[in-house]
Amino acid sequence: MTVAVDMSLLTRMMEAVSAFGATPDGGLNRQAGSTEHGKARDWFRERLAESGYTIQVDAIGNLYGLLRQPGDAPRPTIMVGSHLDSQPFGGRFDGTYGVIAAYVAIEAVRAHASQAGLPLNVDFVIVDWMNEEGARFQPSLLGSSTYCGELGLNYALSRVDSAGLSVGGELERNGYRGTDPYPHADTYLEIHIEGDDALEKAELQIGPFTRYWGALKIRAAMLGETAHTGPTRMQDRKDAGLGAALVQVGLREIARRRDDALYTSCGRLVVEPNSPNMVPDRATMFIELRSPDPVALAEAEQELMDLLAESARQAQVSHEVISIDRREAGSFDPRLVELCEKEAARRGLGTMHLETIGGHDAVPVSRKMPGIVFAIPSVGGVIHHPTEFSRDKDLLDGANVLAGMVWSLNAAEGDIDRAVAVTS
Amino acid sequence: MTVAVDMSLLTRMMEAVSAFGATPDGGLNRQAGSTEHGKARDWFRERLAESGYTIQVDAIGNLYGLLRQPGDAPRPTIMVGSHLDSQPFGGRFDGTYGVIAAYVAIEAVRAHASQAGLPLNVDFVIVDWMNEEGARFQPSLLGSSTYCGELGLNYALSRVDSAGLSVGGELERNGYRGTDPYPHADTYLEIHIEGDDALEKAELQIGPFTRYWGALKIRAAMLGETAHTGPTRMQDRKDAGLGAALVQVGLREIARRRDDALYTSCGRLVVEPNSPNMVPDRATMFIELRSPDPVALAEAEQELMDLLAESARQAQVSHEVISIDRREAGSFDPRLVELCEKEAARRGLGTMHLETIGGHDAVPVSRKMPGIVFAIPSVGGVIHHPTEFSRDKDLLDGANVLAGMVWSLNAAEGDIDRAVAVTS
Repeated sequence: MTVAVDMSLLTRMMEAVSAFGATPDGGLNRQAGSTEHGKARDWFRERLAESGYTIQVDAIGNLYGLLRQPGDAPRPTIMVGSHLDSQPFGGRFDGTYGVIAAYVAIEAVRAHASQAGLPLNVDFVIVDWMNEEGARFQPSLLGSSTYCGELGLNYALSRVDSAGLSVGGELERNGYRGTDPYPHADTYLEIHIEGDDALEKAELQIGPFTRYWGALKIRAAMLGETAHTGPTRMQDRKDAGLGAALVQVGLREIARRRDDALYTSCGRLVVEPNSPNMVPDRATMFIELRSPDPVALAEAEQELMDLLAESARQAQVSHEVISIDRREAGSFDPRLVELCEKEAARRGLGTMHLETIGGHDAVPVSRKMPGIVFAIPSVGGVIHHPTEFSRDKDLLDGANVLAGMVWSLNAAEGDIDRAVAVTS
Repeated sequence: MTVAVDMSLLTRMMEAVSAFGATPDGGLNRQAGSTEHGKARDWFRERLAESGYTIQVDAIGNLYGLLRQPGDAPRPTIMVGSHLDSQPFGGRFDGTYGVIAAYVAIEAVRAHASQAGLPLNVDFVIVDWMNEEGARFQPSLLGSSTYCGELGLNYALSRVDSAGLSVGGELERNGYRGTDPYPHADTYLEIHIEGDDALEKAELQIGPFTRYWGALKIRAAMLGETAHTGPTRMQDRKDAGLGAALVQVGLREIARRRDDALYTSCGRLVVEPNSPNMVPDRATMFIELRSPDPVALAEAEQELMDLLAESARQAQVSHEVISIDRREAGSFDPRLVELCEKEAARRGLGTMHLETIGGHDAVPVSRKMPGIVFAIPSVGGVIHHPTEFSRDKDLLDGANVLAGMVWSLNAAEGDIDRAVAVTS
């Protein structure tokens, strides 16, 4: 007999949690620290408490349900979870599914042990990370990065949204500025919907991410001089807007030279004074470079620096690099990838390796402990949109693979190598 | 004896009017419809009333001082003026000098006639046009264009600033939503500081503008699709920001191919949603093309249309042209240019022909009646900046040329040909 999650519980919980922040178009607006986000978390912590989990909230507002086995002996701890916050025009599945699946998977493991009269050899932590999305407060992955020590607590608490409200203040308001310690864990598992249509196109069900792309987030500005667009001779213009345009065109060329091994973007551009008849004196660009290859990323960074200088020269302006935020590329634990594949195969599910380019909480966490995130299909590859949708069968298959991985780790007393070896 | 303006009156008036909207850096912030703009106009209308002018304010808030000669016979009317509104970070001379010079010039003509026992053969209108700058309310040249019938009154009154306040409401608030008719005039004269350093470089004093450049103001948008800048493959992106960047780079090329015969700009660019990790789905550009040559302008317009389509294709987006505002190129009355040159020469002042690229109120007005605008030097060619400055001697020379032109027209009973013929 295999461990199996309760499909009706999964469906009921997905239904219930989707009420918090629901939008008329079937999507979600449940941004981090909002009232609706707080309500969804209140609802979830009640479910955890009812099921016997000890509730903890740390200083950056990560919510944990701890399940320690009886006795004094320290046991290996399996942490499973994702995030309940959404994009402003987000869908019901991104993050939320990973949190609900964590709960139903561990509940399935508990039921399975109880029915089979087998012991539980590991402790569990279910986690709902604070502000994965980074829509309202930047940076994204705020809670998990603070948990891992990659972000300072004071820095994280002091982030403000566009209205000037801080993370700390909003956590306070919703009762999620906790005082509990960061709980220890030995292994981290996360399930998520895919942000692409690779699984769907290949007609496969489970996609363990093998590695995560590195990212460089660069803020840079072109600095020119305002002048009237009427009388100012073209050769006398110091047009910061033109400088930024040259950078954007060149940036796309940097990506094109590397095919799919480098992604580039300038999603945000602030032009000043932004008046129809004034030559702009400032254009601030929010540029991203992403690659799975650290060497390619470093080369592209240098090319970007050259491009900034050359674009400034062509537009007769100067430039400054305001900030560079480096997020290194890396790999998830290959043993956990293998465990995921074996658990999927055991259930007759097809798998393929994926790479995550956007962030997941598993990225910082996997630098602290063996960790993995794996995906189920999202119809049409839609994510960050109200029409985001995953089929019931995929939701169930994913939760069952997650439960199977937890069960195998439990059987192997938390030893990943042993869990992989005994799973077939 | 030649007509001569009162330098101390000119200095005192320039000093007094500069208090309204004065900024600590010596500049002005006296945007159209603001409280300070209203105060400056109140001050000026009092000066006009004290000197015997009949005050009129029309429906779009143009302020007039009328001086009719006694008797019933209709006389030719000379209109002289400029504007008291400024840019948000403007200087003391742009527009204001033209209004004050109009007053001191006509006062000099009155005094000269009185001293010489000669009659006044023409009527006078001194005008302060509403919203020449177009900084707070677009379009610029609002008052003069409405006077000339080129803009509809309801359209002009309903223009709103970025705070949503309307021209009509702000005129109401300041007491400048008048009910007087548009006064008739036969000839229009305007003096202004130069927006360039051509006179200064050539060490000349007076620059009659011979023609005005045409302008095309085009609002166009690139329409893409939002997507996460992380997982979205480069070839799948529909990046409206990239489309706009390609347009801006290409736009500069369109200008470069024509050297100084075409000016191009994209002063305003609105990117949406303008989030660092979202591919923009909309980028709205405010583009200008300016040229003295209607054929070059028409060719450049076609090239821009091709560029919009080609840039959209390259960025895998679509595009739309939202609006095109055409302002035709044209010439000022060559007889008034000649009259200006003769009056300057008579005073030993050097002249050169200029072309105006940015708008002046004289542009729409000269399409309704013979008109001209002529310039005095601005130190360093500075305009639209707090450091804008013209020397006392230049202020005086310009006002004297203006007074001389008015006197000659008066002597010729408003007949321009005769005025030119008799001036030497």
